[in-house]
Amino acid sequence: MAGRTARMRVTRVGVEGRGERADLLAAEEPLGIRIDGQAVSLTMRTPGDDIDLAAGFLVSEGIVASPADITAMRVCDGQQCRHDHREYGDDVGNIVDIALRPGLAVRTGLGRAFLTSSACGVCGKASIEDLHVPGRFDLSNDRVEVPATVLAGMPDTLRHAQRVFERTGGLHAAGLFSAAGDLLAVREDVGRHNAVDKVVGWALQADLLPLTGRVLLVSGRASFELVLKAVLAGIPVLAAVSAPSSLAARLATDAGLTLVGFLRGTSMNVYSGAERVTVLG
Amino acid sequence: MAGRTARMRVTRVGVEGRGERADLLAAEEPLGIRIDGQAVSLTMRTPGDDIDLAAGFLVSEGIVASPADITAMRVCDGQQCRHDHREYGDDVGNIVDIALRPGLAVRTGLGRAFLTSSACGVCGKASIEDLHVPGRFDLSNDRVEVPATVLAGMPDTLRHAQRVFERTGGLHAAGLFSAAGDLLAVREDVGRHNAVDKVVGWALQADLLPLTGRVLLVSGRASFELVLKAVLAGIPVLAAVSAPSSLAARLATDAGLTLVGFLRGTSMNVYSGAERVTVLG
Repeated sequence: MAGRTARMRVTRVGVEGRGERADLLAAEEPLGIRIDGQAVSLTMRTPGDDIDLAAGFLVSEGIVASPADITAMRVCDGQQCRHDHREYGDDVGNIVDIALRPGLAVRTGLGRAFLTSSACGVCGKASIEDLHVPGRFDLSNDRVEVPATVLAGMPDTLRHAQRVFERTGGLHAAGLFSAAGDLLAVREDVGRHNAVDKVVGWALQADLLPLTGRVLLVSGRASFELVLKAVLAGIPVLAAVSAPSSLAARLATDAGLTLVGFLRGTSMNVYSGAERVTVLG
Repeated sequence: MAGRTARMRVTRVGVEGRGERADLLAAEEPLGIRIDGQAVSLTMRTPGDDIDLAAGFLVSEGIVASPADITAMRVCDGQQCRHDHREYGDDVGNIVDIALRPGLAVRTGLGRAFLTSSACGVCGKASIEDLHVPGRFDLSNDRVEVPATVLAGMPDTLRHAQRVFERTGGLHAAGLFSAAGDLLAVREDVGRHNAVDKVVGWALQADLLPLTGRVLLVSGRASFELVLKAVLAGIPVLAAVSAPSSLAARLATDAGLTLVGFLRGTSMNVYSGAERVTVLG
């Protein structure tokens, strides 16, 4: 089925006039996520790592936190579902169907539908304090320290690891690093939140949650949603190349997450948890 | 209540060491959108222009297309709703409650919940062709022509009109232009899709839909969702500073929308509808 890129003819227009040429675009297609056959989410994503994306989505929604919470993940097209997706590759269908262990299944029907219909009661409250974050992992006990020089080197490492961006200019990336700056996983997507879900889903399946002592780096900005995803995966440090929002900084402070923004060149802003960022000398 | 920016203390870390300083962040808070009291959407947005955002959301969901479709828009907090929000400003609450004219109300309960639960049937189809776009306005009859030199000047105009970005570095923008390059409206938000909804909602209330002959410019990339919003508002030309996705280009082609990407300096790529982009000489 679909790949991660798509080729098409474009008209290039410049001061020298116009001409046709081939261009490579980042692919975007819908992925449906189902729990026990019931649709819970539809997201526009770049095909590839779909199982990771679906697994990470469940972590981000607070539904699962361990590989034992999931009994099966199948990739489906309109006709059939395949248990062992690895045998067929990622591109066999645009649906991932997940079976949860007994006891968790009562929480199905959450996903965006839940967020849409019931969390909206929050909007009427005096402030955002009521937007309760069900953190499974306590970040405040994570004593990891990351040298500022190591953080400063991460954006270059991430950029070099981005395979599709180089060719299309159209993808966000999320990278998981050790505190020594080693890149452990990188995922790309047209949506920054999807790239993060793919990294978290990979970690869930490798039984690495909580991601104690790790650093998550995202291209672009840091929103509330990305901070929430980091907290739910037990990641103590979230770094962004661009600006965070006010709510991202506030949630990071409340949750004990170190939030780094404007990570460019040799400098950065630390919005919360600055004790984890060390400066030598 | 909340403003568009929030001030906080940050730790600045660089080669010269570390120090505290004040920083200004783009505000992000949840906005609940209700139709006749029923919650249909919760979006994280930058406060301000909330009525525009809610109105544009309804256009983007295909629910309304004319100001007559809406009989009332009220801004609410937890306690009460206020009919004339202009008297109080935008910041009286985090909920917008909308009353639709009789006959439209049957379509409530759509929004994200609808997209999540039923459109997911699409994922199982062979391809995206089944993702039917209910275009109210026929773009193919829009014969507007925009000189490439005019397009090339728009990003600078938009950037200069962005008030909050200058101070926070954290906001996306959407700008509506005439074919002569005049900026008609600009809106900012932490979410690019919200910035577009705010522009479209402003146009709806001014009874300007369809936006025949206009150009919508967005900061960053062009996704499927942004193309869909432009089509539903009757905008014939969508331009983006960065790359489009494959699905964005495909929908633009199908809908007769001119899609411009990589609009930087004096050059650009035109992914569909190139006949509307003219080159002098």
